[in-house]
Amino acid sequence: MSFIIFNGDITDRQNAKVDIEDRGYQFGDGIYEVVRIYNGHPFALTAHIERFFESAAKIQMDISYSKEKIESLIYALLDKEGKSTASLYLQYSRGISVRNHVIPKNINGTLVGYLLDGERPVALMENGVSAIIAADTRWLHCDIKSISLLGNILAKSKAVEAGCTEAILHRDQIVTEGSSTNIWIVQDGELITHPANNLILNGITRQQLIMIATQHDMPYTEKSFTVTELLHADEVFLTSTTLEIVPITIIDGKKIGNGKPGAITKELQKLFTLSIEAECGLLV
Amino acid sequence: MSFIIFNGDITDRQNAKVDIEDRGYQFGDGIYEVVRIYNGHPFALTAHIERFFESAAKIQMDISYSKEKIESLIYALLDKEGKSTASLYLQYSRGISVRNHVIPKNINGTLVGYLLDGERPVALMENGVSAIIAADTRWLHCDIKSISLLGNILAKSKAVEAGCTEAILHRDQIVTEGSSTNIWIVQDGELITHPANNLILNGITRQQLIMIATQHDMPYTEKSFTVTELLHADEVFLTSTTLEIVPITIIDGKKIGNGKPGAITKELQKLFTLSIEAECGLLV
Repeated sequence: MSFIIFNGDITDRQNAKVDIEDRGYQFGDGIYEVVRIYNGHPFALTAHIERFFESAAKIQMDISYSKEKIESLIYALLDKEGKSTASLYLQYSRGISVRNHVIPKNINGTLVGYLLDGERPVALMENGVSAIIAADTRWLHCDIKSISLLGNILAKSKAVEAGCTEAILHRDQIVTEGSSTNIWIVQDGELITHPANNLILNGITRQQLIMIATQHDMPYTEKSFTVTELLHADEVFLTSTTLEIVPITIIDGKKIGNGKPGAITKELQKLFTLSIEAECGLLV
Repeated sequence: MSFIIFNGDITDRQNAKVDIEDRGYQFGDGIYEVVRIYNGHPFALTAHIERFFESAAKIQMDISYSKEKIESLIYALLDKEGKSTASLYLQYSRGISVRNHVIPKNINGTLVGYLLDGERPVALMENGVSAIIAADTRWLHCDIKSISLLGNILAKSKAVEAGCTEAILHRDQIVTEGSSTNIWIVQDGELITHPANNLILNGITRQQLIMIATQHDMPYTEKSFTVTELLHADEVFLTSTTLEIVPITIIDGKKIGNGKPGAITKELQKLFTLSIEAECGLLV
């Protein structure tokens, strides 16, 4: 990327440096969002910005910019960059203060936003991916989209070291979510995913799928399921902003169902693509 | 501070800026240490540097500088700053890489080190402090001194909002540690603190106290204790590098013992001061 949203302006990327006493750098004290850009349009932007402010509120952080200002900065960045498909990364950290655990009052945070390259993961969506199962050792506020992500990156890296795409996390055998995705199973035609409580991030794609399932009378339940239920599910898939809907066909080396992307997963992919197209125009 | 250790050199503080794609800033992907400086000498420096490398190893991070190089940078910084009492903050983050959860290979991390002002907390050590009890909602690798500290800062801030100094954390009624300290109780003359496992940071001051207790035949046990045992202990105190040994005299508004610093706590404070003096010279 050449440009960046930085503290209320659009500036050259190379100028975007933060002080070493920014609490984002010393405490992981900040929050973020990733928004998918299709045909140059941000998808589900309002929902992402709402959650950005909700995450901030949950850590008692005031964002010094209005939602409208942030939206206008995003559109200005998109104009300048002129990219069709990309991911917008947006972060707000608490700002610069003498290092002390106690949350400081009356400081201005640091706003950063820029585009990451990346096409739709078409091959993964078509063929599916493999995953490992790993213990969920993260904190108990996974509903906050915070930048204190060390637990997530260790889990993701463990999956990649095992030649897989994702780590499916569980607490005491209850599946929570993936290291950077929500996890779904299909059992006897019913979609099942973990309830949106403090143990998972309530993904925007997750929320979109619930809307789609409702609109299309597809049975779904937000309830806990076990690792055993996961392994014996008819279909398993993950959802995330950048990956959309990706079948998980192999877990810990074992095939899910017949080891191929399932019919309901494929149906959801089609419906989700239609949702994107309704907002952002036809996807090629 | 005027000077800073920054990527292998000592430079002017104002030059120390990090890129917004440093993983320390985007993922809390880094580790740190705080070392106390007495009479211009770093106390227990070897132990701190050992733990710095241990924390890095636990998150699969290679530090690009040798222990000897880091020590020499610290002494050079101390020479330049010429401060008698201070705290050295030392951090290593994984470095700059295109944002992706997966741990990147072959990148150089960012080393930062500088002095924070701060006298010994003599009044707190003499009079004791109050604390609250709070649920330990952090991740399950608290043995790693990582910069993904959002759970810790939320707990500390909760304590300060309640007019207290520290939050004593518990998991299912088992006391683990404070938000930035280790917690000890004295019961029938015995010192008790949580075992050094994945649920607590094995504090350097904690380790020093165990050595002192051993040397002076003071009975101690590393074992779990409950919130009820905490509230009914004869004495409670916290330990940390910057706070040393501070009595906790009031918890959730209730007095511990007679509400005054206990005899064994005071004895340990004296012995710990002697340890510091043996290494760093007389404390005034």
